[in-house]
Amino acid sequence: MQATHFIRNTALRVAARPLTLATRQPAINFVSHRFESTIVQPAAKPWRSGWRILRRTAYVGTAAWFVYGGYNIYTARHPLAQAAFDPEKKTIVILGSGWASTAFLKDIDTVNYNVVCIRGSHFRCQHKDYAQSRAKSRRTFCFTLTFPIPSQVIVSPRNYFLFTPLLPSTTVGTVDFRSIIEPIRYITRHKSREVKVYEAECSDIDPVKKTIVINDNSEIKGSVAQQSLPYDYLIIGTGCQNATFGIKGVEEYACFLKEVWDAQKIRTRLMDCIETAAFAGQPEEEIERLLHMVVVGGGPTGVEYAAELHDFLKDDLVDWYPDIAGKVNITLVEALQTVLPVFSKQLIEYTETTFKEQNIKILTKTMVKEVRQKEILVKDADGSERTIPYGLLVWATGNTTRPFIRSLMEKLPESQTVRRGLAVDELLRLQGAEDIWALGDVTATKYAPTAQVASQQGKYLARMFNLMAIKDKLEAQVVAMSEGPEKDKQIRKINRLKDIKPFHYSHQGSLAYIGSEKAIADLPLFHGNISAGGVATYVFWRSAYLSNLFSIRNRTLVAMDWIKKNVFGRDISRE
Amino acid sequence: MQATHFIRNTALRVAARPLTLATRQPAINFVSHRFESTIVQPAAKPWRSGWRILRRTAYVGTAAWFVYGGYNIYTARHPLAQAAFDPEKKTIVILGSGWASTAFLKDIDTVNYNVVCIRGSHFRCQHKDYAQSRAKSRRTFCFTLTFPIPSQVIVSPRNYFLFTPLLPSTTVGTVDFRSIIEPIRYITRHKSREVKVYEAECSDIDPVKKTIVINDNSEIKGSVAQQSLPYDYLIIGTGCQNATFGIKGVEEYACFLKEVWDAQKIRTRLMDCIETAAFAGQPEEEIERLLHMVVVGGGPTGVEYAAELHDFLKDDLVDWYPDIAGKVNITLVEALQTVLPVFSKQLIEYTETTFKEQNIKILTKTMVKEVRQKEILVKDADGSERTIPYGLLVWATGNTTRPFIRSLMEKLPESQTVRRGLAVDELLRLQGAEDIWALGDVTATKYAPTAQVASQQGKYLARMFNLMAIKDKLEAQVVAMSEGPEKDKQIRKINRLKDIKPFHYSHQGSLAYIGSEKAIADLPLFHGNISAGGVATYVFWRSAYLSNLFSIRNRTLVAMDWIKKNVFGRDISRE
Repeated sequence: MQATHFIRNTALRVAARPLTLATRQPAINFVSHRFESTIVQPAAKPWRSGWRILRRTAYVGTAAWFVYGGYNIYTARHPLAQAAFDPEKKTIVILGSGWASTAFLKDIDTVNYNVVCIRGSHFRCQHKDYAQSRAKSRRTFCFTLTFPIPSQVIVSPRNYFLFTPLLPSTTVGTVDFRSIIEPIRYITRHKSREVKVYEAECSDIDPVKKTIVINDNSEIKGSVAQQSLPYDYLIIGTGCQNATFGIKGVEEYACFLKEVWDAQKIRTRLMDCIETAAFAGQPEEEIERLLHMVVVGGGPTGVEYAAELHDFLKDDLVDWYPDIAGKVNITLVEALQTVLPVFSKQLIEYTETTFKEQNIKILTKTMVKEVRQKEILVKDADGSERTIPYGLLVWATGNTTRPFIRSLMEKLPESQTVRRGLAVDELLRLQGAEDIWALGDVTATKYAPTAQVASQQGKYLARMFNLMAIKDKLEAQVVAMSEGPEKDKQIRKINRLKDIKPFHYSHQGSLAYIGSEKAIADLPLFHGNISAGGVATYVFWRSAYLSNLFSIRNRTLVAMDWIKKNVFGRDISRE
Repeated sequence: MQATHFIRNTALRVAARPLTLATRQPAINFVSHRFESTIVQPAAKPWRSGWRILRRTAYVGTAAWFVYGGYNIYTARHPLAQAAFDPEKKTIVILGSGWASTAFLKDIDTVNYNVVCIRGSHFRCQHKDYAQSRAKSRRTFCFTLTFPIPSQVIVSPRNYFLFTPLLPSTTVGTVDFRSIIEPIRYITRHKSREVKVYEAECSDIDPVKKTIVINDNSEIKGSVAQQSLPYDYLIIGTGCQNATFGIKGVEEYACFLKEVWDAQKIRTRLMDCIETAAFAGQPEEEIERLLHMVVVGGGPTGVEYAAELHDFLKDDLVDWYPDIAGKVNITLVEALQTVLPVFSKQLIEYTETTFKEQNIKILTKTMVKEVRQKEILVKDADGSERTIPYGLLVWATGNTTRPFIRSLMEKLPESQTVRRGLAVDELLRLQGAEDIWALGDVTATKYAPTAQVASQQGKYLARMFNLMAIKDKLEAQVVAMSEGPEKDKQIRKINRLKDIKPFHYSHQGSLAYIGSEKAIADLPLFHGNISAGGVATYVFWRSAYLSNLFSIRNRTLVAMDWIKKNVFGRDISRE
């Protein structure tokens, strides 16, 4: 409504103007040369007409933006009716709800397939399989994806996709977590064919019987809370869980930073530390302990969290807790030589100097040996052990395989020998199993476990998937065709489609926020690399993240959150 | 920045225009009467100049709004340095963080008092007290307010004020809960004198020794987690907790709707019910059970929650859960004759018909006897008992006294005989105790336990408080004055200030939202009453709530949430 209304006004205004000029201009000009002595001639003001043009362009531009945005938002909110699910077709079961699955789900063309999707997605293409089923004119893939509960916290499975790169921002309220999640149904409901979505957790995979067991582990259960689902093709994209390296006390006392509820927990605990430090008669030493925020893990997540925490301190706490803010300390603990190992040397140095300016202490080559309720035991580079008291401990070290994935690997002992994840071939087929594929962090590949890799794998498989559909169509046509050059051409076409290229990853660069409105970026250019750091990079960081967000809804909400933060500051209430 | 920038542009533009006209107009007029035959004279278009004036007014208006709003926001975000707390002065301890306390806190003038505030506030004025302390030129009141944890759920105490009227909207995401909470420090930090804030829970009051015991019951505790605080004046404004009427299973299975975490719990459970109903192979009967939302209590809270739930169903679920949405049922259970007993008869009927249109079932004269995990046992008007299966049960019946208030009442058996709350006199002094006052829902007065009453009591006491300060000043002057008419005048003035008016409540009307963008309102006019219902009333309802919100921050955020909801719909992710 708003949009169209605006457009009408603008149109009116813009339409009215040229007329005004046309009628008025000659009069003035005429006067100007006949009566120049008597009549004050308005000097030509180019800037004014320039300004007018500028203004009109702005009007039209805004109008166009409203139309475009309005249309997008409207269509996004009002999905059309979908074709029904056809039970005769083959079934693909998908486990997982991360980058890979969602990227795949967005790109897959469901015109030619049934899709039953619950969360995330992953696709495979295996020559043998469609050699077998070539006779079929159409083939179905039925997706079922489920979310394994992180071992350290019992939560209901999530029914949304989470934009993880902005998660650190939500720990202090720079961005609201609701702005970076996209309900999975916003995607599935826009598929041309109905997509079934189940919210559950996978507890067992039987690669021989080709079935999986899913459980509803949420708080509210129906009379049916466990189901065995048969599959024709199984896709695994469940990602990983936080690695504790078997260090005592981590799961008990530390906060992870992987899911929305982790970020919420950190936010609440942070304010809890501050309020407890402000409690009547709290001794100085204890205040110091409560206000010591320790981050373990010098990867992008750890660094960005420390940066956000510093911003929150500097922008907000100083105003509202004047006696407390000055006493807050942030320490970053990293076992390796440096923080941000993936970045180039000069950017690492830049980060270190920036952190020094921000009074964020970096302890490299420092191993955490044990986590206790109020302190951590660390081993320094020189091998000496000491304890560091803390109020809030955030654990952002790395990933490890989920229990039910390990149990699957045990069922395939010959081929699944890599401990850090599922071994797959270059077409992402699970080694040693039929009709099972894996992608994303759950796999053990030569690629880093990043969102970029996962989403590119998702896209790759969706593309393959769609190609197969075309191939099938062509094959169906061939059968009907009479011998001749046309048919040979068709067959050659099909054969071209058959040899499927292995997955190739193209690195788009690395970005990280390091606080005080500064970011760092390593961007590959031709065969070289551009390293940039500072405020300009921060602007780039923001725009890159905005454009990477999954929907116009997410983009608008995040942009609004950033404005909100700049205008009103962050919310210090403890919720 | 934005604001000032905008203003500059606008100023430029507005300034530039009159010039243009001044120079151009004469030329045109002159031409018009000399060459009217030969030269096309632009016909005067009054609507155009009218439009121009309108547009400029809009520019200037917007600019003014930006300046005003910007200034308010800036000052709100950047509190000034505060005068130090003076330990020599008298101490008032305040318990509570609701309407009364916050209203008081906003109005109290701290120039003449020390204030140590932790949450909420309440003030009393007792002749005897300041007769005693008249000699003092200045008096201190030290506020300490604490938040008793609701019995049914262990949570950290809240460090914010909650705008309860909009809480039902947050259960389905019409409004984000962060938009309706105001951190208590946003208020205390703007006081001219430092205000101490402790986050704790009061476990005991000793009216004889004049001490209270506060505990830090939050997750994170310091070495000091309990403190005994002495008080000179104690103010109790802790409100109530949810009444279960001793019905079995309520605390175990029902959701209350009193605090932010209640609303969050309801939101998660609602989506949980829907996802569980969509689980693979869930039988029809069980789906029906899971999608039956039961609300117990026909007061404004219950009605507004049912209405919001219906809107969520109609606006959002239909699109994203097409097979589920049609099966959702809402039932409102009320023990009394009608819903919304506080409203006038025709509005009750209007609500009932509106609910019928919205397929919200109303069961009046129906008593809940027992709550079980999946069903409630109710007794109908005719005395017959039956069970109603439910997926989500919201309990919005009424309030009851908190345990530590009851223990206080037991310490004053002669005077504290009213079971439903603390007995106070017309000056809000606690019956049977010295130097203790109570206000808001914690008291048993002739007034309904509403936000209106509580905030008016808060304002009343703040006013009294400030009057006393003036009185003290005058008294100090009198001492210094020589005998004469001037002094007598001064003394008469003081005597006038002494007789403090008892608290008088002025009813501003009742409002409730009943769904489908319709609201009802009973507004007192002169000695009569206006009853209105419908969409227009809904607009009034919105503007009334917007203007009642505590800060420009809250107002903007809620307005943004409403726009967000209209543009993007509500968020269906289960968090």
